[in-house]
Amino acid sequence: MTGLNTQSYTIQFNEPLALKSGAQLGSYSLEVQTYGKLNTLKTNAVLVCHALNASHHVAGKDPTTNQTGWWDNMIGPGKPLDTDHFFVIGVNNLGSCFGSTGPMSIDPSTNKPYGSSFPLVTVEDWVDSQARVADHFGIQKFAAVMGGSLGGMQALSWGIQYPQRVAHCLIIASAANLSAQNIAFNEIARNAIMSDPDFYEGNYYAHEVTPRRGLRVARMIGHITYLSNDDMAEKFGRELKRIKGAPQDYQFSFDTEFEVESYLRYQGEKFADYFDANTYLLITRALDYFDPAKTMGGDLSKALAVIQSKSLVVSFTTDWRFAPERSREIVKALLDNKRSVTYAEIDAPHGHDAFLLDDARYHAIIRAYFSRMQEELT
Amino acid sequence: MTGLNTQSYTIQFNEPLALKSGAQLGSYSLEVQTYGKLNTLKTNAVLVCHALNASHHVAGKDPTTNQTGWWDNMIGPGKPLDTDHFFVIGVNNLGSCFGSTGPMSIDPSTNKPYGSSFPLVTVEDWVDSQARVADHFGIQKFAAVMGGSLGGMQALSWGIQYPQRVAHCLIIASAANLSAQNIAFNEIARNAIMSDPDFYEGNYYAHEVTPRRGLRVARMIGHITYLSNDDMAEKFGRELKRIKGAPQDYQFSFDTEFEVESYLRYQGEKFADYFDANTYLLITRALDYFDPAKTMGGDLSKALAVIQSKSLVVSFTTDWRFAPERSREIVKALLDNKRSVTYAEIDAPHGHDAFLLDDARYHAIIRAYFSRMQEELT
Repeated sequence: MTGLNTQSYTIQFNEPLALKSGAQLGSYSLEVQTYGKLNTLKTNAVLVCHALNASHHVAGKDPTTNQTGWWDNMIGPGKPLDTDHFFVIGVNNLGSCFGSTGPMSIDPSTNKPYGSSFPLVTVEDWVDSQARVADHFGIQKFAAVMGGSLGGMQALSWGIQYPQRVAHCLIIASAANLSAQNIAFNEIARNAIMSDPDFYEGNYYAHEVTPRRGLRVARMIGHITYLSNDDMAEKFGRELKRIKGAPQDYQFSFDTEFEVESYLRYQGEKFADYFDANTYLLITRALDYFDPAKTMGGDLSKALAVIQSKSLVVSFTTDWRFAPERSREIVKALLDNKRSVTYAEIDAPHGHDAFLLDDARYHAIIRAYFSRMQEELT
Repeated sequence: MTGLNTQSYTIQFNEPLALKSGAQLGSYSLEVQTYGKLNTLKTNAVLVCHALNASHHVAGKDPTTNQTGWWDNMIGPGKPLDTDHFFVIGVNNLGSCFGSTGPMSIDPSTNKPYGSSFPLVTVEDWVDSQARVADHFGIQKFAAVMGGSLGGMQALSWGIQYPQRVAHCLIIASAANLSAQNIAFNEIARNAIMSDPDFYEGNYYAHEVTPRRGLRVARMIGHITYLSNDDMAEKFGRELKRIKGAPQDYQFSFDTEFEVESYLRYQGEKFADYFDANTYLLITRALDYFDPAKTMGGDLSKALAVIQSKSLVVSFTTDWRFAPERSREIVKALLDNKRSVTYAEIDAPHGHDAFLLDDARYHAIIRAYFSRMQEELT
């Protein structure tokens, strides 16, 4: 077993990127982190796509911040996605707020932060920008593109946009588009942010404030949808926020009374400390817009007909954000096209968050899938 | 068939009401509306309890506002709760914003609106204040107390607090307490309101503003929890907000893009026009606090042992706010005490909102229940 072999890159792209909206980005940079070693034939690369609030820092400890990568339980030497055998690439997506070009970056045409003038980017745009990262490393074809939630949408879109450049798509806790309810939650979060007086129509940087109130509410809403009802009941129930042994009486106030309130407030504050509001708007809109079947009259089977790669689709029973039935739609559309697809529905209590957690059955499936893939490599 | 025979009352109470919080209200008034006729023996009275945003105006058209009562499909001559046979009482609860004493009322001790100094009231306090309304009409025992959602909690609490004064409890789309997830949704709504700069710690009346942004977000969150996922998919799906025949292209903006966004924004605006923010806080807190099993170490069966009345419990299959399993908890606890209970689980697609809608099977059950009750009366 070797080390994680983490390498960090800031890759500058000066060829304009045409976006789906019709706008284009003249130049931009992407933050990239890689783990493991690219083999001589460059056939062992796995692109890991992130969801709403994650980044290129996928695994290992960051020596500066001491933070652990968001999918560290999945990726590393001897882990399900084994960096002793695969070369893993994490990319911070365009428009995000962890170093890649986004609303917080300086617009070269004005010498001010882009703010609300940063163009809306889509899942398809991210995939296009990730393809240029592959080019940068001389990777013609990924062994796999893998992601959970919004990351799974990117994995699916890779199969559609670059069928010749990806051997396996791993689509976890995801969906081929958002439901009305999903869009509704996003809309409320955006509404909370945009109606915060500190939002200043997206140009809050100039006012040296951030729309913290809106970000807090947005994150609290998010957290409800990440956890299952049972999980919340198990974790918090109706427990009161009290020092142990203190009387279990209500305080009759609007201060924190229940444990679940305390948890949500804490999560909201923490998020408002580090996340950019414009990025939140932009990424939730990318989620809303993703809908590969849209140009096919809503026919997902037609939309996935171009896919050549094999797929692993994974869902979690208590995930009500992207429920198993949403994953089964993808599986059905792939089967309609006689594509090779493996599907696992994991009986896990932790709702949507399960895709980030260390569940033995889930990890065993990912491990087995990559082990088989490893045999193909040699 | 006679008319609805609507009568409106403003009933002033000058005997102090001791609240569960330890505070008391020196004097207060309640808005009351009645329908049908109280019989000579005063045995045909049915109290109808409202949920979060409803009022004493239960049935019929208001001649001034032309608004229809919130449960007009259920209550009236020849309707499931037939006002040709029953005397129906609607009470606007203490702390609400439709005429009864609440945060918007003038505090006699300061000659200013109560605002945030209005005491927190509980479901139990409401029931106590409703018992005084019964006294006012000389009603010793209600034929039934009936309500949906938070109204169902009041019906249940009537059985516990005044076992001798209610013959039947009709507990619809309700629960014996809120789950962690329910509390979480309430907390986010309150957080949105309280963090609105126009909230002024509850004393926004003096500033001649209302925390509209917070109220909008609160209402939008509420609406998601009232509708089922399937219902939202059916009603809105991923339909774009477009003039018919116009191109179905994305606009790539944060303006209203999807029908579901348009719906939520409209509901939010409408609500912010008429609902009082302090009342929203207060009523959601009453929901959070309701938990009759709390003093019994969480044992609901023990908590319901005092109930003497017969009960009808109704739930709706797609209601994820107060799911059928929450109703079954009440049924089980009543059966543990060998109480007479009828339970109906209605296969209806409309989520929590179903209790307000005109569903044939649902209404048939309520109609049959009241018909049997009518025979008891004579």
